[in-house]
Amino acid sequence: MQKLVKGLSQNNSSKIVLVVLDGLGGLPVNGKTELETANTPNMNRLADLSACGLHTPVATGITPGSGPGHLSLFGYDPLEFQIGRGILEALGLGLEVKRTDIALRCNYSTIKDGLITDRRAGRIPTDQSKKLTERLQKEIPSIDGVQITFAAGMEHRFAVLMRFPHDLEKDAANIPDTDPQKEGKAPLKPQGLSKNAEEVAAVAEKLAGRIGDVLKNEEKANYALMRGFSVMPDIPTIEQAYGMSSLAIATYPMYRGLAKLVGMYAPELTGTVEDEIAFLKENFDKYDFFFLHVKKVDSYGEDGNFEEKVKRIEEFDALLPKIEALNPDVLAITGDHSTPAVMKGHSWHPVPVLIRSQYVLGGLCTAFSERECTKGELGIFPTIHLMPLMMANSLRLKKFGA
Amino acid sequence: MQKLVKGLSQNNSSKIVLVVLDGLGGLPVNGKTELETANTPNMNRLADLSACGLHTPVATGITPGSGPGHLSLFGYDPLEFQIGRGILEALGLGLEVKRTDIALRCNYSTIKDGLITDRRAGRIPTDQSKKLTERLQKEIPSIDGVQITFAAGMEHRFAVLMRFPHDLEKDAANIPDTDPQKEGKAPLKPQGLSKNAEEVAAVAEKLAGRIGDVLKNEEKANYALMRGFSVMPDIPTIEQAYGMSSLAIATYPMYRGLAKLVGMYAPELTGTVEDEIAFLKENFDKYDFFFLHVKKVDSYGEDGNFEEKVKRIEEFDALLPKIEALNPDVLAITGDHSTPAVMKGHSWHPVPVLIRSQYVLGGLCTAFSERECTKGELGIFPTIHLMPLMMANSLRLKKFGA
Repeated sequence: MQKLVKGLSQNNSSKIVLVVLDGLGGLPVNGKTELETANTPNMNRLADLSACGLHTPVATGITPGSGPGHLSLFGYDPLEFQIGRGILEALGLGLEVKRTDIALRCNYSTIKDGLITDRRAGRIPTDQSKKLTERLQKEIPSIDGVQITFAAGMEHRFAVLMRFPHDLEKDAANIPDTDPQKEGKAPLKPQGLSKNAEEVAAVAEKLAGRIGDVLKNEEKANYALMRGFSVMPDIPTIEQAYGMSSLAIATYPMYRGLAKLVGMYAPELTGTVEDEIAFLKENFDKYDFFFLHVKKVDSYGEDGNFEEKVKRIEEFDALLPKIEALNPDVLAITGDHSTPAVMKGHSWHPVPVLIRSQYVLGGLCTAFSERECTKGELGIFPTIHLMPLMMANSLRLKKFGA
Repeated sequence: MQKLVKGLSQNNSSKIVLVVLDGLGGLPVNGKTELETANTPNMNRLADLSACGLHTPVATGITPGSGPGHLSLFGYDPLEFQIGRGILEALGLGLEVKRTDIALRCNYSTIKDGLITDRRAGRIPTDQSKKLTERLQKEIPSIDGVQITFAAGMEHRFAVLMRFPHDLEKDAANIPDTDPQKEGKAPLKPQGLSKNAEEVAAVAEKLAGRIGDVLKNEEKANYALMRGFSVMPDIPTIEQAYGMSSLAIATYPMYRGLAKLVGMYAPELTGTVEDEIAFLKENFDKYDFFFLHVKKVDSYGEDGNFEEKVKRIEEFDALLPKIEALNPDVLAITGDHSTPAVMKGHSWHPVPVLIRSQYVLGGLCTAFSERECTKGELGIFPTIHLMPLMMANSLRLKKFGA
């Protein structure tokens, strides 16, 4: 599909805005889902004017993580392009990742007599953790010619890049987590499960030892558990795949990381959804494709907080006219997956979507919700078809065949 | 899919009629599409009695050309079977194409001092152009043992078949157009982009020279530009794929050409839609599968003439009872792609379809339109599934597995 689209893509001056309300889809409480409960006059009005439907991020019945969910939205088959957690974390923390790099996530943890007594080192505060990470960077610049880069994360989390002097095979990161998953157990030794991973595992083992040495006098954070060993996937950029320049507007590192993975410009950004929309407006002339990410909808879904999820949806709805005022050629509103508050987590349910452009039928849905979207002209479709649909609606795809 | 169907197909005496209203699907003007605006009591009545849905000719968001659109309707994956323009044109002009042939489209053009001054030779009238083509045929029967066949087209157009004394590889036609696309430029030299294409390009170059010699004293049509070099695709016939004999009823060369490509009998035919239906009736006993093509719906869509497109739909609807009177076991009505008048061209929108047989649910759609068909029992499905559906509804497919 992506190859077909690439061959047919043509540039024009159209603007596409993709709004991702993270974890948008839900399930009923007292008969109504979060979207159905929310007062969303603007999205309801748009739904009536738009092509609506629901999309399936990975496959029917499969619950997607944030990585696969977003890759699908960007038109990349998440079964073909599997992205390691380490890579996502590193990108999210602002590190540039190359094809010679192994990325991993680490947790500061507490070890005593060779056994892990706290897997998260008492959730050490971010400012303390940051200082430790800076010390690690100073003390451990490299191991056996492999350049080591540390990046501080929130609380007990940090990321590590191991930059090798040579390109890496795809299976070089085939190393299970060293986290034993339970307190009272010894950390696992990094173990290469393939020939290409053995060299990496050996460096990781030395790294774990060096970190332990540097931190040995710390009360809590005296060890690091390693997780999510991964290499950079061989993935085309949005520009290469679709011929569009693109801007990611996201306040959470993970989503900027995902955007950078596909070559989007994803500057660091803080603030509210209103700030994000202001940033969209400021930059509206400079790019073709805009990805605007709203995190809190998912966060409250994950917490099982139905009412707050509803409020965040309403908050976005109230701001929607500011996006409409920019008059994009295509405006799509959807989520990367469903996060029903009743499930306190991601789910497999197809995600409602509306696509507003001048080339739609419309008139089939009276509101923007899971149930109304089943009546829409788009039906239930694989998420990777959304990007071709948005491009078609902005007249960016030429005819196939004569 | 086609392989699966072939293995399960069985013959019986059933009759399938596939009516293709070319470019049927549309978009709203004043809230209603062409189909919704048209007064179509017969199709509306049938929609209520039929299995309805919408189909996607190539892929979501992809706008199909007529070739891919029709191949899909006939059950051939248009991404697997890509048909060159030269082949389509040659077949449409009534030439028999073999596996030893290269087909191309030519334009009579005007050249002066080595530069093209008119790419279409002043759109030379068809009767004049026909005489020139006959002269070319007489003067250039072959080149270096390669048999040359000319076929006159409309105005400045003609087709050429180069029949080689041996089979050709698939990449033998890998030769870009010699049309420089702009007046004031020199024609390009036929250039073989693959090893197998070099021999063909050499013959084409000599052919271009010979044509120039024959026409050198013509005032306008003194040169020929070459486009759409192509070889016959390796494609099974309808008979081979489905075990059905088939008749194509079409007044435009292109669609007869497409039908011949898949081995349908496609006799030359002129006249109105009523004449086409009369021809269907005359031949109803002789074949299993009938493809009846109505061109004007698309033509007016392409012109952006909403009202005339509506009228052509109404015109067909009024004649529909004549087809129903034949009592086919399966009657399917659809288009090969959408051609919304507001877009003045083909579009990516799924195409409404109804399948009338005694084995449908029905009762879901009150009219035959894009929006009503979203409520139908067929959902939105790939166009290549239509042929298996029509065969199933005529009990021509055996059970799969025990």
